[in-house]
Amino acid sequence: NRNHSITVLSGDGIGPEVMKQALKVLQATSDRFDFTVSTEECLVGGAAIDAKGCPLPEETVKACEQADAILFGSVGGPKWVNLAPDDQPERGALLPLRKHFNLYANLRPGVCLPALQHASPIKNELIPNGFDVLCVRELTGGIYFGTPKGRDDNQDNPTAYDTMVYSKHEIERICRVAFVAAMGRDKRLCSVDKANVLQCSILWREVATEMSKEFPEVELSHLYVDNAAMQLIKQPNSFDVIVTGNLFGDILSDEMAMLSGSLGMLPSASLGNQKDNGLYYGMYEPSGGSAPDIAGQGIANPIAQILSVSMLLRYSLGEDDAADAIDKAVKSVIDQGLRTGDLYTGAGNETKVGTAEMGTAVVAAI
Amino acid sequence: NRNHSITVLSGDGIGPEVMKQALKVLQATSDRFDFTVSTEECLVGGAAIDAKGCPLPEETVKACEQADAILFGSVGGPKWVNLAPDDQPERGALLPLRKHFNLYANLRPGVCLPALQHASPIKNELIPNGFDVLCVRELTGGIYFGTPKGRDDNQDNPTAYDTMVYSKHEIERICRVAFVAAMGRDKRLCSVDKANVLQCSILWREVATEMSKEFPEVELSHLYVDNAAMQLIKQPNSFDVIVTGNLFGDILSDEMAMLSGSLGMLPSASLGNQKDNGLYYGMYEPSGGSAPDIAGQGIANPIAQILSVSMLLRYSLGEDDAADAIDKAVKSVIDQGLRTGDLYTGAGNETKVGTAEMGTAVVAAI
Ligand SMILES: CC(C)[C@H](C(=O)O)[C@@H](O)C(=O)O
Ligand SMILES: CC(C)[C@H](C(=O)O)[C@@H](O)C(=O)O
Repeated sequence: NRNHSITVLSGDGIGPEVMKQALKVLQATSDRFDFTVSTEECLVGGAAIDAKGCPLPEETVKACEQADAILFGSVGGPKWVNLAPDDQPERGALLPLRKHFNLYANLRPGVCLPALQHASPIKNELIPNGFDVLCVRELTGGIYFGTPKGRDDNQDNPTAYDTMVYSKHEIERICRVAFVAAMGRDKRLCSVDKANVLQCSILWREVATEMSKEFPEVELSHLYVDNAAMQLIKQPNSFDVIVTGNLFGDILSDEMAMLSGSLGMLPSASLGNQKDNGLYYGMYEPSGGSAPDIAGQGIANPIAQILSVSMLLRYSLGEDDAADAIDKAVKSVIDQGLRTGDLYTGAGNETKVGTAEMGTAVVAAI
Repeated sequence: NRNHSITVLSGDGIGPEVMKQALKVLQATSDRFDFTVSTEECLVGGAAIDAKGCPLPEETVKACEQADAILFGSVGGPKWVNLAPDDQPERGALLPLRKHFNLYANLRPGVCLPALQHASPIKNELIPNGFDVLCVRELTGGIYFGTPKGRDDNQDNPTAYDTMVYSKHEIERICRVAFVAAMGRDKRLCSVDKANVLQCSILWREVATEMSKEFPEVELSHLYVDNAAMQLIKQPNSFDVIVTGNLFGDILSDEMAMLSGSLGMLPSASLGNQKDNGLYYGMYEPSGGSAPDIAGQGIANPIAQILSVSMLLRYSLGEDDAADAIDKAVKSVIDQGLRTGDLYTGAGNETKVGTAEMGTAVVAAI
């Protein structure tokens, strides 16, 4: 009997209600596949600001350190938007967690299932079979954390500055994650940079090119970020895996998520170094936000949170069978026509369900 | 009788052939509105590399200095892609021209005409009347030009770095351009930044907010760049004018152009400081690239180049009537159903035309 432990950070907005369904699904898989997962719930984001005065209390970090992985909900809301950036729920919780746990590899699947094509803002003839792209974003480097970063107000013309820095080792480790991911998919990797303007990007391109020798089966291509932003729209299917830096990945992965039309279906994983047993410490969360406008109504789509559990089982707990079972169960409830409000069109084969019903249906399908 | 002079840099790929049509249209307007424009053609881009060994020869810069404005075609092609970034046609010509002439304000209209909606990759029900957004991009600052920018190879872990810098004055002058533009449109300005991560963006947001006091009629909003990349797709019509920094503007303006579906229809202007007479020194060019794959076949859409002439007439020569006439003529040929291959669908009201026929039709409509 395998015993695991995770820290659960539900956060704000729809976080708690979708988390409840995700934990139901986790329980169902652990029952079926004979393992246990002990969960400790901690405060994060706005909820933590309200209770403790800061978005990432020390005891939350401590709890995460004891666990095998973090299952994260979502943070933020109108109540806290006027705080200084460092004190805000999103920035004040996510960036320190990423840095503290060295979660340098952000995996963001951008999937438009054929059955949910109608929800995509792009014309269906451009994506006859939907699309399935994986964005691998570097998450602990680049202009997010580079120094010097600051501001000089002691002059008549105040000036602010940020530094984008990438070292060869940082680029190597994220590219390795991306090449390995590509090997398990369609073996096409597109590295996105701005090598016609940025020194960081020139180094990035060199390192990616050099590493491709280790992965001769993977077809490596390069795109400038402006062009990538266009090609994602025009032909999302031309991509298999994308690898890029922190800032470009922030923009492109959100663009891709919006193009899928199914933000409520997209999980993400933020991984640290691979351990000797092949597993990763990681943080798992939906790609969408806390959606305060629909929070508490029981109508949010829990699938992104449920699929975050699947990624957690796969990358941090090594419970691949359980992860596969969740992925399959989600596909099957979608095929059955179950839809939360975000994806419901009123077509004859669809049944509109709430957050809890969707969770229950996934559990039933496991 | 008013006399103007411009430098014409046709460049590579489809540049020369669409330029020919644009100059035909320029001639037609100067005839009709009683002014003269002397044109001097100079080498730029790949053509200049082949003839002179560099993408922006000294004599080209000299000629531009003598003129009232630059009419630019497009540069680049497969022949020159393997050169070092600084020597490549695009980077090696555009960045030095922008810097030398202090062209800090890049105006990029993103227009999807109702008649050309079908060409947009986004579903037409999302843009029932097309859309019309103006992106104002800062063009001579930010991470493109900030120092230090370089690379440290003298260690076992080579490291590269770039610096994003913005001063209050730089932000003020670009925001002013954007506020003024908004005043002449729907009076809505969205400033795009990443103020939850970047110090430059925090300053940017402060300056934009401060300046909005000078323009109380303009409704100012702020979006993070990742969210802006999403909202552009979901609801392009929620934007009127966007103002943003050099790097974000590079990405978002291209995204917007692709969303319009009519890249071949979109001009751009890069302006320096306003002179006492209210006019600007500026460089005008199509938003699309040199399209080497279709160059020389007489099928490229010349309208982006023709509308670049219109912007030139308006911002640099003060020939607003002529500019209006061109804008109207372009609308009318589109309404007549004339389409180059990029926009031709085969619908009954359309006539497929080549580059020269399209130019001739615009001239006829003037
Ligand atoms: C909240 C913010 C700092 C964060 C980021 O930019 O990384 C968010 O946009 C994300 O992508 O997770
Ligand atoms: C060629 C390149 C340096 C340039 C830029 O990034 O500014 C181009 O993409 C553009 O947008 O005009």
